[in-house]
Amino acid sequence: MEKICIGMLGFGTVGTGVAKLLIENKEVISRRVGAEIVLKRIADIDIESKRDVELEDGILVNDADIILDDPEIAIVLEMIGGETIAKELMLKALKNGKHVVTANKALLAGHGTELYAAAAAGNAEIAFEASVGGCMPIIKTIRESLVGDSVRSMKGILNGTCNYILSKITDEGIDFSVALEQATKSGYAEADPTLDINGHDTAHKLAVIAALAFGVQVDFDDLYIEGITLITPLDIEYAGQFGYRIKLLAVAEHVGDNRIQARVHPTMVPFDNILSNVNGSLNAITINAVAVDDITLFGKGAGMMPTGAAVVGDIVDLARNIMHEASGRVPMLSFQQEHIENATVVPMDELESLYYIRFTAPDKPGILAKIAGVLGKYNISIESVTQKGRETTDFVPIVMLTHTAKEADVKKALEEIAKIDKSAPKPVLIRIDS
Amino acid sequence: MEKICIGMLGFGTVGTGVAKLLIENKEVISRRVGAEIVLKRIADIDIESKRDVELEDGILVNDADIILDDPEIAIVLEMIGGETIAKELMLKALKNGKHVVTANKALLAGHGTELYAAAAAGNAEIAFEASVGGCMPIIKTIRESLVGDSVRSMKGILNGTCNYILSKITDEGIDFSVALEQATKSGYAEADPTLDINGHDTAHKLAVIAALAFGVQVDFDDLYIEGITLITPLDIEYAGQFGYRIKLLAVAEHVGDNRIQARVHPTMVPFDNILSNVNGSLNAITINAVAVDDITLFGKGAGMMPTGAAVVGDIVDLARNIMHEASGRVPMLSFQQEHIENATVVPMDELESLYYIRFTAPDKPGILAKIAGVLGKYNISIESVTQKGRETTDFVPIVMLTHTAKEADVKKALEEIAKIDKSAPKPVLIRIDS
Repeated sequence: MEKICIGMLGFGTVGTGVAKLLIENKEVISRRVGAEIVLKRIADIDIESKRDVELEDGILVNDADIILDDPEIAIVLEMIGGETIAKELMLKALKNGKHVVTANKALLAGHGTELYAAAAAGNAEIAFEASVGGCMPIIKTIRESLVGDSVRSMKGILNGTCNYILSKITDEGIDFSVALEQATKSGYAEADPTLDINGHDTAHKLAVIAALAFGVQVDFDDLYIEGITLITPLDIEYAGQFGYRIKLLAVAEHVGDNRIQARVHPTMVPFDNILSNVNGSLNAITINAVAVDDITLFGKGAGMMPTGAAVVGDIVDLARNIMHEASGRVPMLSFQQEHIENATVVPMDELESLYYIRFTAPDKPGILAKIAGVLGKYNISIESVTQKGRETTDFVPIVMLTHTAKEADVKKALEEIAKIDKSAPKPVLIRIDS
Repeated sequence: MEKICIGMLGFGTVGTGVAKLLIENKEVISRRVGAEIVLKRIADIDIESKRDVELEDGILVNDADIILDDPEIAIVLEMIGGETIAKELMLKALKNGKHVVTANKALLAGHGTELYAAAAAGNAEIAFEASVGGCMPIIKTIRESLVGDSVRSMKGILNGTCNYILSKITDEGIDFSVALEQATKSGYAEADPTLDINGHDTAHKLAVIAALAFGVQVDFDDLYIEGITLITPLDIEYAGQFGYRIKLLAVAEHVGDNRIQARVHPTMVPFDNILSNVNGSLNAITINAVAVDDITLFGKGAGMMPTGAAVVGDIVDLARNIMHEASGRVPMLSFQQEHIENATVVPMDELESLYYIRFTAPDKPGILAKIAGVLGKYNISIESVTQKGRETTDFVPIVMLTHTAKEADVKKALEEIAKIDKSAPKPVLIRIDS
């Protein structure tokens, strides 16, 4: 039986999962591929720590070049993460004609153009199913299943840490900081959760899939990104009363003429939208396309074994190409390289949405009329107003849901309302998915 | 640009959807494949009826052989349905070395072995993503994404007609026959809905995916199949009170030693299981595998455009193989042909499940004690008993939920209970998903 050799760079959590699967399921994988997939070398600076997998002697090395310079190794797994050494090693692997499998969305979102060009130059492929949504076949679905259709929009819950924290606040009425602490303790948040809770990890993933779905290049800096750190139990409670759950959604939408919306922010999702029922650390994505309407995928978006399984799926895809000398069979970016277009990300000011706005207003007569007057001036029409409870003796919460309004108008109105009483706290604004 | 020619057999609903997509999205498809996909011929006995798509002159013909004997045509779409003429033409296409795309689950479930062998003999492939779950990439997910993992079980709602009818009964409290009538009127049920409502369509799909997931041959006649015709609003109401919705579930489970469970029957699904929230004509499937845990897909399981899009996805897969001379790259049955094993479907008697049993018992003292006595004798322990309402003056409904019990024991107990009062209606038994 033909043998295809793999070298892995980085032996952390996901790397361990990949090694386990390749070793434990070796026989079933070869029954499927018709070739033996051999994990020949793993390189890591730490070759001492005990991992939860048994390796034969000589597999673990501390020099990446042993892998990158080995002509027998056809596929390199970049399981290091980050944007520095990972990028350098990936470029060398591609230059040496080795295919690369990665789960590194930050690297792809920030340096994709350079990396894809290096792959083309080296006659190699980059496979990255594991970079978005863990085990869910998002990349494959966009790139292979929806290939005869036109994607209109995608809405996803793509960060398990945020979804876990928001679910905790929702279920237990605790504050963000307490929920984050619990998430860290139970292993649902990393020691440094910054990239998760500020929405950047979600945005990296959005950039990767928006490029595929629309056949465009997306400049990561054009994305609107808002994290979950300011979400309070109070807003979640109000959301529930109005029939919504708050989720950190990644939204991309094709709005014509190579213009796309691409944004990440807390969003109120109606109870009857399946995404509002995705709780805990689960991920989900709904892809809306012209012919198929909505397809939703959900499952575990992270973790040693789910992400490991996605990496192995990519290895098998590449191995099947190698067996049939069919590399490049599915274009990495869904479209043939020469057909990738530039897209403009629509400025957030042009967004039209329903809004939830919670004012903390001085408890004085006439204040509601003043707020409503400013909103009216900017053509923001109010669907409902609720006023209950009391935050302090001097202020009352006023919760408004708007009809469809323009983001720019809402921003201007809030600036003007801020001048009514400069001692009042900043209002909370959450966009509503409709 | 290279040109790949397609011939389509059958120009009904799905065929029309395929033609629309191939014509309207021609440019975007070629941007993705790097080849021009040409719909060269469509054969149908009816070449007069107006369809919702514009064809150039000469494309529509009334002789299938014009397609099957055309050496330029590389891919044949079997869009006829049924198990007679469709099979004959498919065999001829494969013999002539043409790849075949089909949505015909009945044909694959009943004659798969013969057809796959014919494909192998003709050096051709059969692609059948559209046969299960319309636009949802179930086949691709099992065969390509979960390739490094081991599927343990699958639970699916795979028939939109049944799910629509059950949702109607649930929402409106109407009887099955009324719901079926409404489904027919609104186009959610075909003129002859027999194969849908008796569960056989669901079972055909289950047979197709069970083979892929477990790498086994499944004898369709071994499947346990129960339809939805006996479901009443009363049972749905009780189900709701206990926290369940009734769904027609297809269940396949690997139970070791090449033994699998494969069954289709109405099942009570807990509210917190995502499948219980899949309503109307939507389909969904949860695949449970060792590494990834649960992945759920859902979307439109039928219809002109969703199924058409799945067919086009398959065409593109085959076209990409043709471009790279990589036919056979992904084995049709997920495993290489020589590694397909025979599986035994576990007899239904061996099933262990929770049960909902509704007795319609004579309204006499001591009857409950008698029923409970018989259940106890067969080791069936009762979790709860509810008795409310009254069906006639002489009978009362007694609803029981059991703890885990063996199907054989439940069957024997019900036979014995039937003897207590021969005038009592047959009890209703619905299995509960746990």
